[in-house]
Amino acid sequence: MSTITTTNPATGVTDDTGIEASTDAQVAEITAAAASAFQALRSHDRAWRAGLLRAMADGLEANRAELTATASAETGLAASPRLDGELTRSAFQLRLFAEAIVEGGYLEAIIDHAADTPMGPGPEVRRMLVPIGPVAVFGSSNFPFAFSVAGGDTASALAAGNPVIVKAHGSHPLTSKASFEAMKSAADAYGAPAGTLGIVYGQQGGATLVADPRVAAVGFTGSLSTGRILLDIIGERETPIPFYGELSSLNPLIITDAAVAARSDAIADGLFASVTGSAGQLCTKPGIAFVPRGATALVDAIVARAEAAAPQPLLNSRIHAAFDEIRQRLIDDGRAESLVAPQAGADGFSVSPAVLAIDAVDVTAAVTEEAFGPLLVIARYDDLAEVAVALAAVPHSLTATLHAEDGEWQALAPLIGELEDMVGRVVFNGYPTGVRVSWGQHHGGPWPATNTAHTSVGVTALRRFLRPLAWQSAPETLLPAELREGYTAIPRRVDGVLRLGDAPA
Amino acid sequence: MSTITTTNPATGVTDDTGIEASTDAQVAEITAAAASAFQALRSHDRAWRAGLLRAMADGLEANRAELTATASAETGLAASPRLDGELTRSAFQLRLFAEAIVEGGYLEAIIDHAADTPMGPGPEVRRMLVPIGPVAVFGSSNFPFAFSVAGGDTASALAAGNPVIVKAHGSHPLTSKASFEAMKSAADAYGAPAGTLGIVYGQQGGATLVADPRVAAVGFTGSLSTGRILLDIIGERETPIPFYGELSSLNPLIITDAAVAARSDAIADGLFASVTGSAGQLCTKPGIAFVPRGATALVDAIVARAEAAAPQPLLNSRIHAAFDEIRQRLIDDGRAESLVAPQAGADGFSVSPAVLAIDAVDVTAAVTEEAFGPLLVIARYDDLAEVAVALAAVPHSLTATLHAEDGEWQALAPLIGELEDMVGRVVFNGYPTGVRVSWGQHHGGPWPATNTAHTSVGVTALRRFLRPLAWQSAPETLLPAELREGYTAIPRRVDGVLRLGDAPA
Repeated sequence: MSTITTTNPATGVTDDTGIEASTDAQVAEITAAAASAFQALRSHDRAWRAGLLRAMADGLEANRAELTATASAETGLAASPRLDGELTRSAFQLRLFAEAIVEGGYLEAIIDHAADTPMGPGPEVRRMLVPIGPVAVFGSSNFPFAFSVAGGDTASALAAGNPVIVKAHGSHPLTSKASFEAMKSAADAYGAPAGTLGIVYGQQGGATLVADPRVAAVGFTGSLSTGRILLDIIGERETPIPFYGELSSLNPLIITDAAVAARSDAIADGLFASVTGSAGQLCTKPGIAFVPRGATALVDAIVARAEAAAPQPLLNSRIHAAFDEIRQRLIDDGRAESLVAPQAGADGFSVSPAVLAIDAVDVTAAVTEEAFGPLLVIARYDDLAEVAVALAAVPHSLTATLHAEDGEWQALAPLIGELEDMVGRVVFNGYPTGVRVSWGQHHGGPWPATNTAHTSVGVTALRRFLRPLAWQSAPETLLPAELREGYTAIPRRVDGVLRLGDAPA
Repeated sequence: MSTITTTNPATGVTDDTGIEASTDAQVAEITAAAASAFQALRSHDRAWRAGLLRAMADGLEANRAELTATASAETGLAASPRLDGELTRSAFQLRLFAEAIVEGGYLEAIIDHAADTPMGPGPEVRRMLVPIGPVAVFGSSNFPFAFSVAGGDTASALAAGNPVIVKAHGSHPLTSKASFEAMKSAADAYGAPAGTLGIVYGQQGGATLVADPRVAAVGFTGSLSTGRILLDIIGERETPIPFYGELSSLNPLIITDAAVAARSDAIADGLFASVTGSAGQLCTKPGIAFVPRGATALVDAIVARAEAAAPQPLLNSRIHAAFDEIRQRLIDDGRAESLVAPQAGADGFSVSPAVLAIDAVDVTAAVTEEAFGPLLVIARYDDLAEVAVALAAVPHSLTATLHAEDGEWQALAPLIGELEDMVGRVVFNGYPTGVRVSWGQHHGGPWPATNTAHTSVGVTALRRFLRPLAWQSAPETLLPAELREGYTAIPRRVDGVLRLGDAPA
């Protein structure tokens, strides 16, 4: 047995957590409990499950002070407002999924009554989405709540009716444990089956979890390299399972001349905040900004802010080392010029913001690697045709952002079309960070941003952990309540015609 | 260059088709044309696309006599009613997708207006599904229309707004060519972009197609082994793409004592027809039937029908060889007893129905291999507990079927739960063959039935060839029509509340 350690990124000091790494036998016990819980959860309806999610949200909020303090020590992120806001988001998310499952549209219920068809008599078919089984969740280092134990993958998998087993992130094991305990206590008090929520510690435990035949899907937020390791484990399984990976994102941002002319200072402020918020460790951080060559005041303003900024700790030693390495590589290989000298002597894993400049015509794969941390590449362009060409070297991303002015949109349509093909969300005159959790949010994108056509934020994230099931000519008593003839509480499509559910009481 | 041949399964005679196998250069030209068509298709709205699908349906029906005659010679299936009905189904399917895209619910349009949230002001987010790009379609040998060039994958991919490139099936190249020409002529006359529909001939051409970077997804219906070859090619691509494979299915069927008592003859008729229709070459053919040990009259009736049946040609020499091989292996390895002696001296690839018997307690993986062709394994059971155990050796399938009587359902609930976990569709007191094409149909199932959580039959098959895209704070003029503020023609979810579209005019 090995013991899990935790490191304070602000100081670089490592401590023992007292948590043992999970053994293979423990992982097997946890997945067996999850498999039992999967069966037991079926006897509960959506309203019950909504109550479970709300109880978990309450449980997190009841432990707000402890959770944010623990997370701050493990991540270097400020307890307030940063982690406080993130905990609010996690609780909000659980409650939003509760609302969504009560509403019931996510079930995609469809009823085709028996009917004559051009091919002869057609039997009755009733179809809806059902849960898939225990889901393994691998969270990310940068959101110790909202993309971790208490995060969106957990919330959406539970909402869909599946048990969840979380792999505790090595960068915040104590936060993971405390989050798990808060949610698990709430679940126990609510009367949920014992295996509804589980947790596994350590890298080997995570690998064993993904290989376990009882695990039906994996939700993952992290690096492409770790994602590939887990995909290889899945490739060795007897039964393949879906892997929903959010993997990498450069998030190009383009600013037109007219936008610079209209609001250079505001863009400098907004862009700098978006690049450096959470020490630049957001998956939607704009990593490259295409700026007109003449926008010197805009660039100067960003540089001035970077020079004045206090160093911020990065999440762990790996991210810290990669940040320095990528910055140096961009300068060495990528014809990029450093506009801000690195500040020396910062504590722990702290770094100061890096701003590099390059000509848009020199944008190649060498300068479009995602650097986790406060690093921005400014690509200076002479005309937008250069940007359109340079975008071919930008990896597909979660987001793309365009700053332009009224009157320009028509001319920009081809460029916007190019952006739409590259990403999951196009942002206009705003910033891609601060992903809104809502019904329509899409936090996804073409490979290598993700390996799926699904979102990991917003209500439709539910779809990942469901599968369709059809009943042909089933006796009414054997149908799920939602597919019975007189059920009117949810939207259903009946003989091709969509019908609304009853208005909420 | 090599030339494609065609073989008449009824005679075994092989002829030259005069069709050349596609070269790599030709495949590249075809995918480039598809990529251009993908851009061009965007300028057309859903009503235009519905018209295209209807024009293609009309084009198929206008060539009905030639198509069904060609297909009959290549497949050994009867031109009427079998292939005639299948052509009707293909045309119906195109028209059903036309109806569905006009209705617009498939777009999953969601609008979240800007609003205050517990995390602060949230920006406007509008989201809907958009097409993904050129789709490669690999049809199956057993449905030369409905799962081939003119099949559901083609129809759903086109309906979603994607160009399609079909790999012509080696078992029916002339039918593929004739179907392609009928649809392509209709598309040209309708004014569709040149690369909207393409076709590739030969195994190497198919491999090159899947590897082509312009191809965005693959729809496949066929064997697990061929599916794995294509998945390996995808694994070598720089950009992975979704592979929607319908791969194999045993389709267990269970008959209770009470059902036997109530309608033994009717079940013998229905089951025999389901096993032997299309010479047993349907993906939903029940391959194993669990029958009470005392149901001797039922078994005798099936055997009598099998002995009296005329031999039917199988689709090709590979299926023919596999049929004999699997039948023999079941007898040699699987403790199965042959109840019907094979008829000797049939022409071409013809076989007579095979009926084997085994004890349910002896059901292992050795007797649950899918045999394409008219082969049924009857598993005799003493009580349903034996069936529940035996099901663990039955691979996950597209369907499971239960024959039982009123009054039994409550007691059967645990068994039905087990079936629901194994399949995509549960059939009650009917037969799994004759898959209804409708809004709610689900033709899918857990691995190894398919490798996806999607259907390949029915309206929701559209979802495979779409991806979500979100627009944040976009100027109205840049939004797709369906996401603009005043658009009311389709169902949309606005600020969490589902709204119906306008009633059709």
